[in-house]
Amino acid sequence: MNISGKILIASEWLQGEGNNFNASNPSNGQQSSETFSNASTAQAQAATLAASQAFDIYSQYSDQKKATFLRTIGIELEKVRSAIVQRATWETALPESRINGELGRTIGQLNMFAQLLEDGDWKRPVIDLAQPDRQPLPKPDIRLTQVPLGPVVVFSASNFPLAFSVAGGDTASALAAGCPVIVKNHNAHPGTSEIVASAIVAAIKQCGIPSGVFSMLHGDGRIIGAGLVTDPKVKAVGFTGSITGGRALYNLAVGRPEPIPFYGELGSTNPVFLLPKSLDANAEEIASSFIGALMMGVGQFCTSPGILIAIKGQSLNRLLASLAEKTPALNAASMLTAGICKSYQQSCLTREAMPSLTKIASGESADSKASQAQVNLFSVDAVDYLKQTELEEEVFGPSTLVVCCEDSDQLLAVAKSLGGHLTAALFSEEADQDLASQLLPVLQQRVGRILFDGYGTGVELSSAMSHGGPYPSSTASQTTSVGTRSIERFIRPVCYQNTPDALLPIELKNANPDSVMRLVNNKWSTDAIS
Amino acid sequence: MNISGKILIASEWLQGEGNNFNASNPSNGQQSSETFSNASTAQAQAATLAASQAFDIYSQYSDQKKATFLRTIGIELEKVRSAIVQRATWETALPESRINGELGRTIGQLNMFAQLLEDGDWKRPVIDLAQPDRQPLPKPDIRLTQVPLGPVVVFSASNFPLAFSVAGGDTASALAAGCPVIVKNHNAHPGTSEIVASAIVAAIKQCGIPSGVFSMLHGDGRIIGAGLVTDPKVKAVGFTGSITGGRALYNLAVGRPEPIPFYGELGSTNPVFLLPKSLDANAEEIASSFIGALMMGVGQFCTSPGILIAIKGQSLNRLLASLAEKTPALNAASMLTAGICKSYQQSCLTREAMPSLTKIASGESADSKASQAQVNLFSVDAVDYLKQTELEEEVFGPSTLVVCCEDSDQLLAVAKSLGGHLTAALFSEEADQDLASQLLPVLQQRVGRILFDGYGTGVELSSAMSHGGPYPSSTASQTTSVGTRSIERFIRPVCYQNTPDALLPIELKNANPDSVMRLVNNKWSTDAIS
Repeated sequence: MNISGKILIASEWLQGEGNNFNASNPSNGQQSSETFSNASTAQAQAATLAASQAFDIYSQYSDQKKATFLRTIGIELEKVRSAIVQRATWETALPESRINGELGRTIGQLNMFAQLLEDGDWKRPVIDLAQPDRQPLPKPDIRLTQVPLGPVVVFSASNFPLAFSVAGGDTASALAAGCPVIVKNHNAHPGTSEIVASAIVAAIKQCGIPSGVFSMLHGDGRIIGAGLVTDPKVKAVGFTGSITGGRALYNLAVGRPEPIPFYGELGSTNPVFLLPKSLDANAEEIASSFIGALMMGVGQFCTSPGILIAIKGQSLNRLLASLAEKTPALNAASMLTAGICKSYQQSCLTREAMPSLTKIASGESADSKASQAQVNLFSVDAVDYLKQTELEEEVFGPSTLVVCCEDSDQLLAVAKSLGGHLTAALFSEEADQDLASQLLPVLQQRVGRILFDGYGTGVELSSAMSHGGPYPSSTASQTTSVGTRSIERFIRPVCYQNTPDALLPIELKNANPDSVMRLVNNKWSTDAIS
Repeated sequence: MNISGKILIASEWLQGEGNNFNASNPSNGQQSSETFSNASTAQAQAATLAASQAFDIYSQYSDQKKATFLRTIGIELEKVRSAIVQRATWETALPESRINGELGRTIGQLNMFAQLLEDGDWKRPVIDLAQPDRQPLPKPDIRLTQVPLGPVVVFSASNFPLAFSVAGGDTASALAAGCPVIVKNHNAHPGTSEIVASAIVAAIKQCGIPSGVFSMLHGDGRIIGAGLVTDPKVKAVGFTGSITGGRALYNLAVGRPEPIPFYGELGSTNPVFLLPKSLDANAEEIASSFIGALMMGVGQFCTSPGILIAIKGQSLNRLLASLAEKTPALNAASMLTAGICKSYQQSCLTREAMPSLTKIASGESADSKASQAQVNLFSVDAVDYLKQTELEEEVFGPSTLVVCCEDSDQLLAVAKSLGGHLTAALFSEEADQDLASQLLPVLQQRVGRILFDGYGTGVELSSAMSHGGPYPSSTASQTTSVGTRSIERFIRPVCYQNTPDALLPIELKNANPDSVMRLVNNKWSTDAIS
């Protein structure tokens, strides 16, 4: 597939007026033959203007029309699967199987939102009927639904070039909500992004969607990214990335004359608690499953297990021995970018130099010309861990810290010391339930997902998923960026009082033609109102 | 009832270590015999520490236990009704009937949240059952519920000394969610607040609630208020007040190392559109009903109609004539505080001096020693209105601007020029529906509630209510501060994956003992899972 290197404004490919750059293959440093062009500030403004004009039309679309659009994007993506796989493996050094799987997930997300729209009750309609005879004052007819916020800026993530990128979860949920999207692309995979954006353009044309509904820009986060976040036409932002970059953009979003919601998923260490009876029974199995989770995407998952917490004793020794035995054989692998690799190596060096940390083992040594990461496992005594808050910070890459506690009280103290994370995992047997039940209320206050006997690395596409958590794992802990509820980031309530039926949105009309589930006079019902 | 003038920390009345102040009666400037004491920064920290300790226990309470607590507060408030009425009328210059009504509303809010807790489905539980045989990977069991955020700071409003104050909507919804509350009291009604807080303390004692669940502090917003908002133990803020004060506190909340949600209801002008056929049919009736709405609480409702928009012609002339005829007889009345009155007078003088504005009429002249407001109605040509954005700003008090448009296009242009407001109203007949249907999508983007043939001044307590809107009417347009949905400001999602049934929160257990409505495998159901 031909890559133009252009930017996309309102479904038109244009030469960017900013600097040029090349894509590169992290596994060998090779530069792309094509040159990509960054957007200028004026071009970014043209994209938001087009989005804001398109919003007036697109926000009024029926759920069915938006669902068809989302499904069509999925079909168009499937058509260019081989081009995406070829380009994405080159740009990210991720294996074919992973890219194929991630493309399936991306299409699955689009279809999941299409299904949500077809089911029809995502706006959570509520109807309180009038009581004209109520004393001392008549009660009006009141009906509640949701409307889209307006144009949304989506910042692509480096670590999921498809599922959290151009046509990823943020884009899908915003489009489903009725919001136009401007993607600020991640320059770690610009060619992949162009192919994906072309599929969206094809769907826009097929479905007759206003062209301003989608734009995709290359550009520096500090210039084009900041410009988009502070543009008055933009009404919300989705972001996945580093704490430093995310917080800087968050500050801009909330510092605007009109502050807007900034949905940033920033960083998480995903503590894993190995409770005593489970560790007794499964030390070796846990070592194996842990390594499997750690190695996913070269440790570059936001849900990668960064801290294991266990109580000292023979079973923990078995676990450590098993890790020490298995780790040296773990392959070094290329990371997503040379910059990410450098930063990972620096973090490992810092940990190597800390006197309180013990190296458990390292994997195969890394070829730094290939931006490879070497696996590095460390352990620390809980007493020392509790004194060094920086040990809780995420190391982006395949490194984990085992925190060794004296007893269950100290394990609880470690839990209580935690800040915000996306997930916490517990390995537990039935005989551990007493300790588990003490841990749960502590973890509940600190994470967005609690899972048993597994790792957070698999983030299911589900109506029951929560992918988010207290700061810094998310800048908006009350929302999720995965699963159907993520659509709620891009809508807000509007209440209609004493409104003629003819003027009500379809989900609030008496007839309820789509048989949507509604709360009517505080009872759930799919019935029409007679 | 004896007023001590003390502050309340974790159910204990203490002498504040800050400055002293007296309450005053705005209608005559009389100072209270009692002296009130402001909290010191250390005392504010003691309150948040107690709240954070109490949170560990209170957040785990059953819905039934919290419901009983809320109902008990209501019962205790009813017991001190006469003391509240006596004190609040003295402190606010609002009439007895209003205070009696507002106390009823306040108790109604507490009972509404108790009922919500008893109904049990406010946590919106979702269950996606496991599919162990799914290919290529088994699907885990995933269940979603909500947990409370932590200690909440509530800033009392001046204009609703009960319903948006110590035991008002923010407090009731936070307590219902499972969050301890620290009230930063408004010093316009400190004695009233002490009586109300005593009722909460009585309920805390009766129900055996941890004492740290409630504190109430007097203090300067810029010192104690700012200290509370930036206290790391505080996890959310509810605020009703001015744009200046609210935005300053919002900036502190989002500027913390760990940003927290700030739910500020700041300012709204609540535009009212008088569509042509309705104005033809009802000019005089609209003049009467408008005056009724404007005079509510001396124009000090956040939903007070500040702008009327209509098309020039005979019918608008009839409306203006009717307003000119009725207004001179409208009584001057004392405002909530001398400061509010001064600021109202200043706003009116500014408008008097604007060459583009025409005075329609004024009410009875005001006695400024009694902090009285005189009604002032102005009109402006839409051409001039569209040039002066400051005319959209709220004037807190009984003054309204009539915007006179050439035609329906200009009326739509005025609608499109609007920023964020709490409400918009339309007066319309069936023959106006074409214009109404053009207005609705415009207003939908700009307000939180759209109402027909009435004014926003009545804010129904309902599951279908939305009291909020785009900035500056609210700093969090995706939430409501009135109605059952307001509880959602103080909770966040937590997902449980592969969790043993014994360890799940009750609303997620297979047995579903409370028959809560849940989304199970994407179908609504109150059934148990077998």
